[in-house]
Amino acid sequence: MELAALLTRRPSELKNLEELKSVPIFDTYGQGAISFLKNEVDVAVLCGGSKTDLPKHGPFFAQAFNTVDSFDTHNHIAPYIDEKTQQKMKGYFKEMDDLARATGHTSAISIGWDPGTFTVEKIMATAFFPVSRAYAFYGLNEKGGLSMGHSDAVRRVKGVADARQYTHAIPKAIERVRKGENPDLKAGDMHWRECFVVAKPGEDLARIKNDILEEPDYFKPYRTVVNFVSQEELNTKYSAMPHDGVVIAIGETSPGKKFKIEYNCQWDSNPEATGHIMLAHARAVHRLNKEGRIGAFRPIDIASAYLHPSSFEELTKRI
Amino acid sequence: MELAALLTRRPSELKNLEELKSVPIFDTYGQGAISFLKNEVDVAVLCGGSKTDLPKHGPFFAQAFNTVDSFDTHNHIAPYIDEKTQQKMKGYFKEMDDLARATGHTSAISIGWDPGTFTVEKIMATAFFPVSRAYAFYGLNEKGGLSMGHSDAVRRVKGVADARQYTHAIPKAIERVRKGENPDLKAGDMHWRECFVVAKPGEDLARIKNDILEEPDYFKPYRTVVNFVSQEELNTKYSAMPHDGVVIAIGETSPGKKFKIEYNCQWDSNPEATGHIMLAHARAVHRLNKEGRIGAFRPIDIASAYLHPSSFEELTKRI
Repeated sequence: MELAALLTRRPSELKNLEELKSVPIFDTYGQGAISFLKNEVDVAVLCGGSKTDLPKHGPFFAQAFNTVDSFDTHNHIAPYIDEKTQQKMKGYFKEMDDLARATGHTSAISIGWDPGTFTVEKIMATAFFPVSRAYAFYGLNEKGGLSMGHSDAVRRVKGVADARQYTHAIPKAIERVRKGENPDLKAGDMHWRECFVVAKPGEDLARIKNDILEEPDYFKPYRTVVNFVSQEELNTKYSAMPHDGVVIAIGETSPGKKFKIEYNCQWDSNPEATGHIMLAHARAVHRLNKEGRIGAFRPIDIASAYLHPSSFEELTKRI
Repeated sequence: MELAALLTRRPSELKNLEELKSVPIFDTYGQGAISFLKNEVDVAVLCGGSKTDLPKHGPFFAQAFNTVDSFDTHNHIAPYIDEKTQQKMKGYFKEMDDLARATGHTSAISIGWDPGTFTVEKIMATAFFPVSRAYAFYGLNEKGGLSMGHSDAVRRVKGVADARQYTHAIPKAIERVRKGENPDLKAGDMHWRECFVVAKPGEDLARIKNDILEEPDYFKPYRTVVNFVSQEELNTKYSAMPHDGVVIAIGETSPGKKFKIEYNCQWDSNPEATGHIMLAHARAVHRLNKEGRIGAFRPIDIASAYLHPSSFEELTKRI
């Protein structure tokens, strides 16, 4: 793999990095940059946020390149009703699928660890043991886990200069699941959310807080704590971006015979781990496209052999 | 899914079961049974052992049906040199692939948990984090885990009436891996093997023991303890078939930033869990075959959506 070019809102932060010396950097994604890049780029890795970036970037880039993105507004992937306009929306999957097919491209959507590898683990566990449920918890340690999607959502609230959102699992819920109760749990029974927010000068903090709490999907279903801090405090105390999580499925293969699956991951850096997972999917979309398999692919549509740098023959040996 | 027919060496044990009352049972797999079943069966699930059954059953059934099997002689899946004859062998994958393609069928080979889901987990972890290694350990609890493949291998030794093989992980090796050392470990550094063997009357126990220890792949690379017991003792003390295991991958996404993935499974009944996993793959091969995707598929060639009973649209909603 080779980094062919960078498109960024922050060219000044990147232009002086030694390792990017020979990489073309663009601060626009207009048709000019696209035409220039068209022959140079096999896959565009879209690193924008799900709230306002990807709904524009995904459809735009899917018409020019194979793409990988980490679209994580879970309720907007399948067809849905828009909360404000009450309009029927076709959802991100179908939108990307239509555009990629029309232009002969392949797009892996919703890649990362959830949606992403956690989706794959949940679907595998419930496919093998159809009577079971699979539960996913995030932010298992005391400090919780930094959610990039939710941090981005807070930063998009009017009057917010900067923000980090830490997700916390609710230990009692994990305990019930590990006991094998297979309980009915709503989103808010499983996690709570903690926001550290830097407000712009002169903004109404109560209004900002209310805007965050009322955000559908992201915060409304959860107990959410909003803390206002200075930029300095955010930078010093809340700059780390760790995250962790677990997928659990428990049940019986026959009366009295239990099975238990647990998939755990821990990342010191959530964005680096997510970036690694997206890059493996960049390899997969390139291979799928070369086989003529065009359109949008969900994490669960990509067989693991496509992700791996080794050849078919080497992988057969490794089995 | 519906059970269309059973082919078994033990028809008498099954013929009286209430739940199999309306299921045709055959004690032969000759052409007569195959012609009779040809129109009734979408997928044949091959439950024989890897040592002597599957090398015959796989190629035979792949010409008449889509198949799923749990071929687990790891060294014989890719091309290999036969130890005794020094002949070049094309390996189980290629053999099944050629026959399935020639007859328009789809065969999922080496399905279960290892090879199987553990293979998928190892390939995903090392695809996402290419500098990392992934380690798999089995039999984490004190009693170890019942290996069906290795039990079968012992039962095939001349003079053995019955046998169970328990695999034990070596805790020190797990400890080193969990510390993030990424050590070089040979098979024998990670596991030891414990056999409980019922000998046929008048057999030479020393010869049986030696035959087991000398078995390539299965026992030769490991410290192996062979215990001779009576059939009664085997039935009472060693009738349970639990197993468990873990896949671990640890490394850094950049200097000082660690990642850690652990996939754990625990089965009260290894054969029941393996059976469940194979059935989900029966669903997948049927779907793949309907899409015209013929030939042999390794666990890592099957995307998880194909395994799941839910429709494409339902799964998109679940993401």
